Amino acid sequence: MNHYTVTGFSSIPTFAYGLVRDLRVRWALKEAGLPYDVELVDPAIRKSDAFRQKQPFGMVPAFAADGLELFESGAILHLLAEKSEALMPAAESHRAWTMVWMYAALNTVEPPIDLLLSIDLQHSGEEWAMLRRPAVVETVLDRLAVLARQLDDRDFLVDRFTAADILMATVLRLIRHTELVASQPAVDAYLKRCEARPAFEKALAEQLEEYANTIRAAA
Amino acid sequence: MNHYTVTGFSSIPTFAYGLVRDLRVRWALKEAGLPYDVELVDPAIRKSDAFRQKQPFGMVPAFAADGLELFESGAILHLLAEKSEALMPAAESHRAWTMVWMYAALNTVEPPIDLLLSIDLQHSGEEWAMLRRPAVVETVLDRLAVLARQLDDRDFLVDRFTAADILMATVLRLIRHTELVASQPAVDAYLKRCEARPAFEKALAEQLEEYANTIRAAA
Repeated sequence: MNHYTVTGFSSIPTFAYGLVRDLRVRWALKEAGLPYDVELVDPAIRKSDAFRQKQPFGMVPAFAADGLELFESGAILHLLAEKSEALMPAAESHRAWTMVWMYAALNTVEPPIDLLLSIDLQHSGEEWAMLRRPAVVETVLDRLAVLARQLDDRDFLVDRFTAADILMATVLRLIRHTELVASQPAVDAYLKRCEARPAFEKALAEQLEEYANTIRAAA
Repeated sequence: MNHYTVTGFSSIPTFAYGLVRDLRVRWALKEAGLPYDVELVDPAIRKSDAFRQKQPFGMVPAFAADGLELFESGAILHLLAEKSEALMPAAESHRAWTMVWMYAALNTVEPPIDLLLSIDLQHSGEEWAMLRRPAVVETVLDRLAVLARQLDDRDFLVDRFTAADILMATVLRLIRHTELVASQPAVDAYLKRCEARPAFEKALAEQLEEYANTIRAAA
């Protein structure tokens, strides 16, 4: 029996509710039916030496699997996917394509989407952000058009639900404040399909409940 | 006997010499001692439907392994690493840390570094780029400081050379036009250590020779 612990933040700014990346790990664990503990860290100490021992970049998630301290949501999902066929099919070609789309989500689709989130929610009104936004939107639309083609005749990126969909859906959620995903009906339907999964709904409710608990405890 | 084909571009702008990501795949194949063919594509057709069948985002590398068409340099390296212990140690903890640093290279370190490359080499002199550059440099320096701590008592990210070093070194090379890596001696020494490997030198020479061949053929 493996013992897993997911580390998240005890509180976050409102704009980031439902966007913090430990959600990916909780969702994956619930899809795989693997129980886990949660450890919450005050974001005020995220740059401390003690926390950097756990997560050197001072971010979440961190993850412990039987005492092995790990980080990077992509790597954690990949390791879990190796343990559960619910997250990665066993057939060689489908396994390879799952890996292709996991890396595509994080290395090709997330960077421009994360930049747009930053422009709109952290740097709104700044001169550089206003000047740069149109080109970033254009790149995001180009990525969404590729996803629309991939999803034209598929419910998920690789025929059936995989860890790649957890990564891609949580990437697409980063621009929920825009109409960009809605502008591509196949991608919009895909995101709704992912978000309707019971494992996603439970993981999100759990994460949000913890932030609410922190607020109640401080009141 | 596996049959591998790496797809790269036949020609690229001078500033990108030695930075195009099929270098990662060639380097990994040479570290693993796996032979491969190269297919060169005119970048003018990268947005064509024909090329998008191979690489939906219109980028390189694409990769064929026994007829299975793949893309995303991270996924390709990951799949090769599963085939060769030269790229990923077999011991469970070291294997997990290799995965952690592979994803860290591509999802945490590359985005700000790639943005700085874009600011300096593609958008130099533009108003937004001048306004934004200092904050991007600060983020890059923060990432480099984390790498310096990791490399303080190690030659490579995970004790011995792995696929994570191929990804991280090729990420760090993206800002070779700056003094930022040199400002962190442990990271600077690490990058030089990676670049001194015969497999890297051969992969780079091969890639550059192909661009030279294209130029000669057109002359």
